[in-house]
Amino acid sequence: MTGYGLAMDVRGYVESNASWFFDALKQWLAIPSISADPAHHPDVRRSAEWLVAHLQDTGFPVAEIWETPADQGLPAVFAEWPAADPGAPTVLVYGHHDVQPVEPLEEWISPPFEPIESEGRLLARGASDDKGQVLFHTLGIRAGLAARGQSAPPVTIKFLIEGEEESGSPHFASLLRRERDRLACDVIVISDTTMWAADVPSMCTSMRGLAETEVTLTGPVRDLHSGSFGGGVPNPLHAMTSLLAGLHDADGRINVPGFYDRVLPLSDEERDLLARLPFDEKQWLEEAGASGAAYGEEGYSTLERIWARPTAEINGMWGGHTGPGQKTIIPRSAHAKVTFRLVADQDPAEVGAAFERYVRAHTPPGIQATVTVGAGVRPCRSAIDSPAVLAGRRAMERAFGQQVLFTKEGGSGPEADLADILGAPLVFVAVGLDSDQIHAPNEKVDMTLLLRGAEAAAYLWEELAAVRSDPK
Amino acid sequence: MTGYGLAMDVRGYVESNASWFFDALKQWLAIPSISADPAHHPDVRRSAEWLVAHLQDTGFPVAEIWETPADQGLPAVFAEWPAADPGAPTVLVYGHHDVQPVEPLEEWISPPFEPIESEGRLLARGASDDKGQVLFHTLGIRAGLAARGQSAPPVTIKFLIEGEEESGSPHFASLLRRERDRLACDVIVISDTTMWAADVPSMCTSMRGLAETEVTLTGPVRDLHSGSFGGGVPNPLHAMTSLLAGLHDADGRINVPGFYDRVLPLSDEERDLLARLPFDEKQWLEEAGASGAAYGEEGYSTLERIWARPTAEINGMWGGHTGPGQKTIIPRSAHAKVTFRLVADQDPAEVGAAFERYVRAHTPPGIQATVTVGAGVRPCRSAIDSPAVLAGRRAMERAFGQQVLFTKEGGSGPEADLADILGAPLVFVAVGLDSDQIHAPNEKVDMTLLLRGAEAAAYLWEELAAVRSDPK
Repeated sequence: MTGYGLAMDVRGYVESNASWFFDALKQWLAIPSISADPAHHPDVRRSAEWLVAHLQDTGFPVAEIWETPADQGLPAVFAEWPAADPGAPTVLVYGHHDVQPVEPLEEWISPPFEPIESEGRLLARGASDDKGQVLFHTLGIRAGLAARGQSAPPVTIKFLIEGEEESGSPHFASLLRRERDRLACDVIVISDTTMWAADVPSMCTSMRGLAETEVTLTGPVRDLHSGSFGGGVPNPLHAMTSLLAGLHDADGRINVPGFYDRVLPLSDEERDLLARLPFDEKQWLEEAGASGAAYGEEGYSTLERIWARPTAEINGMWGGHTGPGQKTIIPRSAHAKVTFRLVADQDPAEVGAAFERYVRAHTPPGIQATVTVGAGVRPCRSAIDSPAVLAGRRAMERAFGQQVLFTKEGGSGPEADLADILGAPLVFVAVGLDSDQIHAPNEKVDMTLLLRGAEAAAYLWEELAAVRSDPK
Repeated sequence: MTGYGLAMDVRGYVESNASWFFDALKQWLAIPSISADPAHHPDVRRSAEWLVAHLQDTGFPVAEIWETPADQGLPAVFAEWPAADPGAPTVLVYGHHDVQPVEPLEEWISPPFEPIESEGRLLARGASDDKGQVLFHTLGIRAGLAARGQSAPPVTIKFLIEGEEESGSPHFASLLRRERDRLACDVIVISDTTMWAADVPSMCTSMRGLAETEVTLTGPVRDLHSGSFGGGVPNPLHAMTSLLAGLHDADGRINVPGFYDRVLPLSDEERDLLARLPFDEKQWLEEAGASGAAYGEEGYSTLERIWARPTAEINGMWGGHTGPGQKTIIPRSAHAKVTFRLVADQDPAEVGAAFERYVRAHTPPGIQATVTVGAGVRPCRSAIDSPAVLAGRRAMERAFGQQVLFTKEGGSGPEADLADILGAPLVFVAVGLDSDQIHAPNEKVDMTLLLRGAEAAAYLWEELAAVRSDPK
């Protein structure tokens, strides 16, 4: 709490406190909070305790550990700092303090939990995903208070920092429901994504959801000899290929009736902004090993296809004899795992049910179909013309001193649950890069970008306070 | 060689020597000549030695063991008995003396190599497939000689009794090529098939061949995350489903260009004869567990579809994530095993090459295809109006005292190699039944039918001698 009375500008504060900030981050990064490994669960708890102490030290009057419902999971951290003005909006910052496993350990150039600096990067597991991006907010809060010479932020700030994100957030939705009242907010800030590039600042504006299904087709009571029966009875593998080949039409659109009913079209402005990203399609295709051939739904660019359009993918398929040599059989069953990437406002359960109807409509006589549908993930979306997103964009542009573009992400985590359960819009303010090697050996974060993130966070509270009338 | 001078009719001889015949067969069946099991390879040799002794005892002046080329396999038995008239045709009888494995042993009602009689059936491994059907020929030869009061048969009779048929006849074609001169013949008699029913005697007139292929489609260099890449790169599993779904048109015909070029059409007489078989289609479909729905190529009956028409079957297909749970990937590769059942005069290598061209023509940009083609099996066919087949039919009709119908088989063994390499027509004279449970526990043979087979064999030599001018 020292230094808050000293008036100075945000950037000046951030830069003069960088050394202290990185020392704090290194302390936190030294705690191996791997949620996927039960041996490290005590470390996840230590990580939560470290963050509570750090938030208290930052000035949060409330900072506490939240156990997951029924104590089945790993602890989250909640904190709250009321605005000086009780009429100011409330902003919830989401991030996570657990980290990915570190295998293969031998590929790290230095131990993953002994952070080192190298060429302007801080290298450690969690540096970018997500401890570095959580912590820039506390430096931003300090900087904002210092610059304004105030002792309370211009908006009420809440933190919800999860401990199970890298394990699939199994208890997160029920935690949100249990604590809905204390988490009430007007805007949710997500700091767990990436920018387009270090010199192309950008904000994510949507994430695709997921509908998960598995199809089983059964025919003969047992594997039949294809010499004796071939040509006279239906083969479940043939039925499966017809069924799945028919999923897409010649233009790459998905043939499931009703599939597109809830899809919000891309606006001309969104398409224009995506087209302005310096995307090297050829290089991207080469990295995917897709032989340089662009592929996908007719009428859309590659970025639109992977970010803004729903898809159907066969993730796995099997049936009959799959070992060495030949077995001339008509197999008794065929199986496929099929998932759909969804965009707002598609609903995983509705898409799963529509696919099940499609399967039944295309199952030939003599074949029985079973379709199972998983829970799925809802897509999420921030309207790029909403006051909250525009406030976030202004904050980012002030920090970076240049225009901020918009990106999207093709997959997602628990973000849609946050928006749905808390009923507030999402604003993505993050400074990770695709080259940070999150989930891989030698995870790192650009230290300059973390400081820019802190600056953007400081401005964000001001910008959101200024649109208090309706920040949504 | 006793009793050959006594004139009596064939049936009388067969019936009065039945007890002796079944005793001999039981001795042979007691030898567990399982070619698939190396532990039983000495028994396969003992079986060959037993047969050589039996053929010598029958009167064959030549009866010997033939090692397979390079001594890599299990022995065959060759025998030859020249006709009294040196201008008489030569007939080669094909069968095999090896047997299927016996697992699961606990399902046998008596030990598989301790033959027992029960309700007119002889129960043992090999009773029907194929020792019983090989041995009825020696009883038939004795009966024919006895009835005619002769000491040499009316045609030159050769025997080639293989020891590896149940292991896929790996050395049979090269054995035929090596011994082509000694095997030279005008007609080949196959006694390793079945009749329609005990009260519906019939002869097989064709067997489908096989073209074996495996297709691999590869796309991305590695499994890709479907959130990051889904919708923008081609998925090998989708390409595989399209490729294979397109193999059949809406009428169930195969879409591979040139596939039907060499297919000999069914004659009206053949279709009429097939239609006269008392086929219970409903029961057949129920046994296949195909939910009672007839299926197949438009314009053909079920029997025509499974016997006389070529097919394409996916025997196995796999790719991507096939274990429990979801992995939201675009897999790097997809695989399928596809075989084609062929009819005369299709060629396995030609069909394999045509399929490879089809695959390449239907592989989308960004996907690479690999197709491997196995050796395959040639289809075989007996013309139902050929003198040899008509002679066989007359012999069967004399033995059974009723009209003999024609059947076909959907799969085949080494029969086409015999016809192709030796350049002689095939005549199928056999008395097995589909209910004999060959390749399953409790294999059995109808003892009365074996005696009818011996009678038919006795008449066959006469009938073939009578068409000596051109038995083909």
